[in-house]
Amino acid sequence: MRFLHTADWHIGRRLHGFDLTAEQDHAFEQIKQLALDEHVDGVIIAGDLYDRSMPAEASVAQLNHMLQQLNLVAKLPIYAISGNHDSAIRLSTGTPWFKSTQFYMHTQLEQAFTPVELPDTQLFLLPYFEPFAAQQYFNDDSLQHLDQAFVPIINKMKSLFDPAKKHLLVSHFFVDGSATTESETQLKVGGLAAVSAGLLKDFDYVALGHLHGKDALHAKNARYSGSPVKFSLSEANQKKGVFIVDTEPFKLTFKPLTPLKDVQQLIEHFETLADKSFYENLKLDNYFGITLKDRKPIPNVMARLREIYPNIISLDRADGYETGIEDSGESGAQIRQKDPMDLLGDFYKQIAKDDLSPQQIKWAQEALKIADNGGLK
Amino acid sequence: MRFLHTADWHIGRRLHGFDLTAEQDHAFEQIKQLALDEHVDGVIIAGDLYDRSMPAEASVAQLNHMLQQLNLVAKLPIYAISGNHDSAIRLSTGTPWFKSTQFYMHTQLEQAFTPVELPDTQLFLLPYFEPFAAQQYFNDDSLQHLDQAFVPIINKMKSLFDPAKKHLLVSHFFVDGSATTESETQLKVGGLAAVSAGLLKDFDYVALGHLHGKDALHAKNARYSGSPVKFSLSEANQKKGVFIVDTEPFKLTFKPLTPLKDVQQLIEHFETLADKSFYENLKLDNYFGITLKDRKPIPNVMARLREIYPNIISLDRADGYETGIEDSGESGAQIRQKDPMDLLGDFYKQIAKDDLSPQQIKWAQEALKIADNGGLK
Repeated sequence: MRFLHTADWHIGRRLHGFDLTAEQDHAFEQIKQLALDEHVDGVIIAGDLYDRSMPAEASVAQLNHMLQQLNLVAKLPIYAISGNHDSAIRLSTGTPWFKSTQFYMHTQLEQAFTPVELPDTQLFLLPYFEPFAAQQYFNDDSLQHLDQAFVPIINKMKSLFDPAKKHLLVSHFFVDGSATTESETQLKVGGLAAVSAGLLKDFDYVALGHLHGKDALHAKNARYSGSPVKFSLSEANQKKGVFIVDTEPFKLTFKPLTPLKDVQQLIEHFETLADKSFYENLKLDNYFGITLKDRKPIPNVMARLREIYPNIISLDRADGYETGIEDSGESGAQIRQKDPMDLLGDFYKQIAKDDLSPQQIKWAQEALKIADNGGLK
Repeated sequence: MRFLHTADWHIGRRLHGFDLTAEQDHAFEQIKQLALDEHVDGVIIAGDLYDRSMPAEASVAQLNHMLQQLNLVAKLPIYAISGNHDSAIRLSTGTPWFKSTQFYMHTQLEQAFTPVELPDTQLFLLPYFEPFAAQQYFNDDSLQHLDQAFVPIINKMKSLFDPAKKHLLVSHFFVDGSATTESETQLKVGGLAAVSAGLLKDFDYVALGHLHGKDALHAKNARYSGSPVKFSLSEANQKKGVFIVDTEPFKLTFKPLTPLKDVQQLIEHFETLADKSFYENLKLDNYFGITLKDRKPIPNVMARLREIYPNIISLDRADGYETGIEDSGESGAQIRQKDPMDLLGDFYKQIAKDDLSPQQIKWAQEALKIADNGGLK
């Protein structure tokens, strides 16, 4: 059989204040078309359909539209689970009716043990869950962490294996022991305990959601599809897309998606950025994270850059700022030996170009005395 | 055909801080059983399924469970609309799939013009809408108020009438020109424009939601079912229930629901309320609104009453409080002629049992002078 594997749609997400609705709709249309062109037997969505557990009305309308398009108009089966960003309860609304059109949305742990039975494949849909849910389900208080909870979960699934079929798992969590190379991956773990990739070895394929880069994991039989859209500057260099998964013979094909507005990092001098011969080759409505190589102050820098690059999502300096404060040439050790009142006087002179007034000196001395005595009583 | 008409479930509503989940579940079970016992052809829910446009997860779980029980377990068709308390967008989640099991949930104005076609009845499901939606639908800016918008809406529905069938309308708004006798009715209108009952005369029956009392309207062919549960002390004397609607011959039968804990008003002296021979005849876990006939202060009155009546939703006095301030016997006219400083002195003496100090007199005189001059400049 052939599936399309996507995840982490995060409907409702914003990019540094910019609305991503059009970007997400654009990615969705490509996913739908790919699913049709590739004649897949179903679309797997491995969690985090929404960005928030309480999505705004506009997000609800957007995701409802997508799921209806995919399942009711394009007649594609959907195999979906809730992720840690979703409210399992809200996302479960309507799910008993969805099955009538081959739309499976699992939001509760126990649903993972009723695999979707396809002609030659068993699909286990394991939603994101908290260890507490596993403790309750297995009546076992010792399941304190996700990796512990996964042992009985996988064992129970294996007891349900039909040996005549392939076995696919759809899940949403952090898999350890994998070739995670990008630093952003670690940041995204967000306190979720890691599960060993070895635990998953008996599945023919594990369609994962949670990490936003398709290269977060390179296990033989387990992949993150990554998000269809870039959600931060740290994802600027990722290639976004979906996996086409063939089960017999097993084959994984990555299909890239084209962004409407890409997320791009520019590390340049202001002069370069403002030079037409530089920027005329860029797609200027992209989302730009700009890092200036300049150290000197540039008046109205953001406004001037926005005239050329309207969608700036961050602006910083590669090598810090020139402060305009003279360097006295003293070492840290020398400075630490100076009298605090002298230090304050030096500092004030550098910033305010003036000496402390007698009243200011008096206030500072009083404050110092209080500080020396252990603060205000 | 035979329908059960209910409305205004307001799932998520609280009664002066008390959780009504159990009360609403209890009413729901009776509604479901009535629908089964009466062999109805469907259950009409005329809006305000939720109490809030952004219901809590627990409310979502509760309503989802009810609708699944009714439609998927009891196999009863559902004909529902969104009310002004619902988010039309959130409530629309899953609705395209619901039709597969005869569960119709209309949340958009245009859906009102696709009647549900039953063997001998056309059911028009008109959700709550804002005049702006009608302006857009009819491309007519003059539809500023609900009563204006209803004219083309009803006309369009009538153009769709199948003369061989009965015509039922389900809607959620305030109908004017009816025998609304209870004062609470007026309060509940909440700024919604009223629609004339005459406009609705061509329907065999109009199943209404919005007002919480079944007696809010006594039109021949239009009724509010009222809410299944009492939501305020002002509803204490209402009889809650549902209507069984027969279309041929037309017959309306009110079926009362039994509350788990009723809402009840007590107007008594404290001594009576604390007398076992009085309260032993009451269902003490009811929700009580208590009005004391006493005028004297009663120490710890709420705590003492709660020992007997644990679920007090309000406490007030029928005839105000004794203040402990002596009545000087002066008339209002006499008092208004007194010097403001004398009045203040009298008042201070009554409250503080002391004379104003010279400093207080000075402050008061200064304040009076400023007030006489038109306030602080």
